[in-house]
Amino acid sequence: MNLKIAVLSGDGIGPEVILQAKKALYAISVAYNHEFIFEDALIGATAIEKTRNPLPEQTLNLCLNTDAVLFGAIGNPKYDNNPESKVRPEQGLLKLRKELGLYANIRPIKPFKNLLDASPIKKEVIENVDFVIFRELTGGSYYGEKVINDEGTFASDICEYSENEINRITHRAFKAAQGRRKKVTLVDKANVLETSRLWRKVVKNIALQYPDVKLECQYIDNVAMQIITDPKQYDVILTENLFGDILSDEACAIMGSIGLMASASVGNNKALFEPIHGSYPQAKGKNIANPIASILSAAMLLEHFGLDKEAKKVYEAVEKAIEYKVVTIDLNPGSRFGTNDVGDFISNVI
Amino acid sequence: MNLKIAVLSGDGIGPEVILQAKKALYAISVAYNHEFIFEDALIGATAIEKTRNPLPEQTLNLCLNTDAVLFGAIGNPKYDNNPESKVRPEQGLLKLRKELGLYANIRPIKPFKNLLDASPIKKEVIENVDFVIFRELTGGSYYGEKVINDEGTFASDICEYSENEINRITHRAFKAAQGRRKKVTLVDKANVLETSRLWRKVVKNIALQYPDVKLECQYIDNVAMQIITDPKQYDVILTENLFGDILSDEACAIMGSIGLMASASVGNNKALFEPIHGSYPQAKGKNIANPIASILSAAMLLEHFGLDKEAKKVYEAVEKAIEYKVVTIDLNPGSRFGTNDVGDFISNVI
Ligand SMILES: CC(C)[C@H](C(=O)O)[C@@H](O)C(=O)O
Ligand SMILES: CC(C)[C@H](C(=O)O)[C@@H](O)C(=O)O
Repeated sequence: MNLKIAVLSGDGIGPEVILQAKKALYAISVAYNHEFIFEDALIGATAIEKTRNPLPEQTLNLCLNTDAVLFGAIGNPKYDNNPESKVRPEQGLLKLRKELGLYANIRPIKPFKNLLDASPIKKEVIENVDFVIFRELTGGSYYGEKVINDEGTFASDICEYSENEINRITHRAFKAAQGRRKKVTLVDKANVLETSRLWRKVVKNIALQYPDVKLECQYIDNVAMQIITDPKQYDVILTENLFGDILSDEACAIMGSIGLMASASVGNNKALFEPIHGSYPQAKGKNIANPIASILSAAMLLEHFGLDKEAKKVYEAVEKAIEYKVVTIDLNPGSRFGTNDVGDFISNVI
Repeated sequence: MNLKIAVLSGDGIGPEVILQAKKALYAISVAYNHEFIFEDALIGATAIEKTRNPLPEQTLNLCLNTDAVLFGAIGNPKYDNNPESKVRPEQGLLKLRKELGLYANIRPIKPFKNLLDASPIKKEVIENVDFVIFRELTGGSYYGEKVINDEGTFASDICEYSENEINRITHRAFKAAQGRRKKVTLVDKANVLETSRLWRKVVKNIALQYPDVKLECQYIDNVAMQIITDPKQYDVILTENLFGDILSDEACAIMGSIGLMASASVGNNKALFEPIHGSYPQAKGKNIANPIASILSAAMLLEHFGLDKEAKKVYEAVEKAIEYKVVTIDLNPGSRFGTNDVGDFISNVI
């Protein structure tokens, strides 16, 4: 297979970890005779510094003309401490999601057998946990109108959803459930929010088309608790943008390290693959960041294009690294292995 | 002291658990020579059934003319499965909060020494955890304009905040921190939401008036994870309505059972005390619901009126019940003690 992949390494540890993902993909292309062509482009704070634009035209065009995007991380404390600044790295990511129509963010939560002890949660609670979060990614309060009055004394954000926006991700979630344990949990706050009531209505209607899949509706506050106390109950979690943001980071607690969490953001034509850890500026350049989330994001890329054998190979290599403790310090405090070593080990195993 | 207390037992297990809180308060009044006068009133689904109004005029008037409100729970699955219905029990609670000006919801998170094993989280992670959540309670998307179009294909919710609304709860949070470990963590999503940026600006300004208190700002997605992976870092968490709803339920995972979590909702003149578990309809009438959350809410009521000795007495009685395993089945699966037994034990110890 021929794939043209845009590489947006971004800020902080982005470049270091994405390099390891590229190595893994390169190893796969050699082993399985594919051709992956990588093209780099700017995004985030790095792009602001060089072009004053968190998503330069050139980057967007590249992404529109490639098969997939491999994304590192964005964010810089400079902007965090000054969220009022007009240009922010996050805008690059949000605009990219919108322009590429990446309406479904998919995050699998399945702890590694050899890492059950790394989680703050008890082993018996997280053993055999296996669920996937479908987070709506191009709607909700991320994109609704924002207001701040001239005096800076009043602000508002609108959360909006249309039936269509709910439809398309819901079908994806139910189809995914059909290939799994056949259960969808819709997470909302329908006892308070109008948008949640719309979600509930639309999702219940669509559920009728999937009689083999069971639908459950739970409130976000309850789920925030249950994801920790009883995570085994979940198979596919479906939810709107902000709730999905919160729950999928929370679910990292199950995995033991945020450095293990991969994600795919998909639309009807385009797809982007991204570790969810963010730019982690304190670790930048220290060769200590965990590259596994990026490498697993590359595996999700392979799966997305039907390269299941290849994806499996990557997963197995990652499992081997974990088994042999070739991991970074977040997973083994005394570890002598750095970002590069872990990446090398994994691509060698491939 | 003379106190007139409105008792709104509400739905589901509300009446059973509130009865135990009343017993505890009665025991305190006898032991310390106070006079507590209880007056019952309708709220929630029970009120809808009898008056078609989730917050009857009479109930509101009673609350406006008493010193404090002891609140049970509201909610009935009948309405949950039909969130589109025009009259819902939750409206009663939301209106009551607004009308009484209860802008600060306060939830302490401090696991009991003898219950560290009840949590799904490892003992070493939650040992010595002691923080309190200050959740804004009368603003945000709970009260902003809600829209659903005629075709039922588009919905929106507005999240709004004014400087004043942020001011008053922020001062409370900082004052509380001064009497504790002197740290406030503001939780927001300032990289995306305009309201969050307003919160950050206002809170940072107020922080200057409390030079002895350290302010930290964290994103909600990050906190949803950190509350599980590193809860010891928190002292006072300050946040807006919906984020507070999510985080405070999530924090129940630390306590081991939602049946242990009490809350106070306070304003400038009025105060309401409430277990946070909700109506738990499956347990209604079975004498299995944990009354401790209600009894601890009564303790918060005592504290609110400066009756610290009395509140301490209640805490100690609760600790004794836990120590002697006089607890309901949520805390001890084989327990032979019911709601009533636990309530009796605690008021006898008092
Ligand atoms: C950086 C931020 C805007 C982003 C989000 O909230 O979507 C991040 O938290 C994520 O989940 O990808
Ligand atoms: C019942 C519901 C409206 C309420 C809320 O969301 O505020 C509850 O979850 C709570 O936290 O008190």
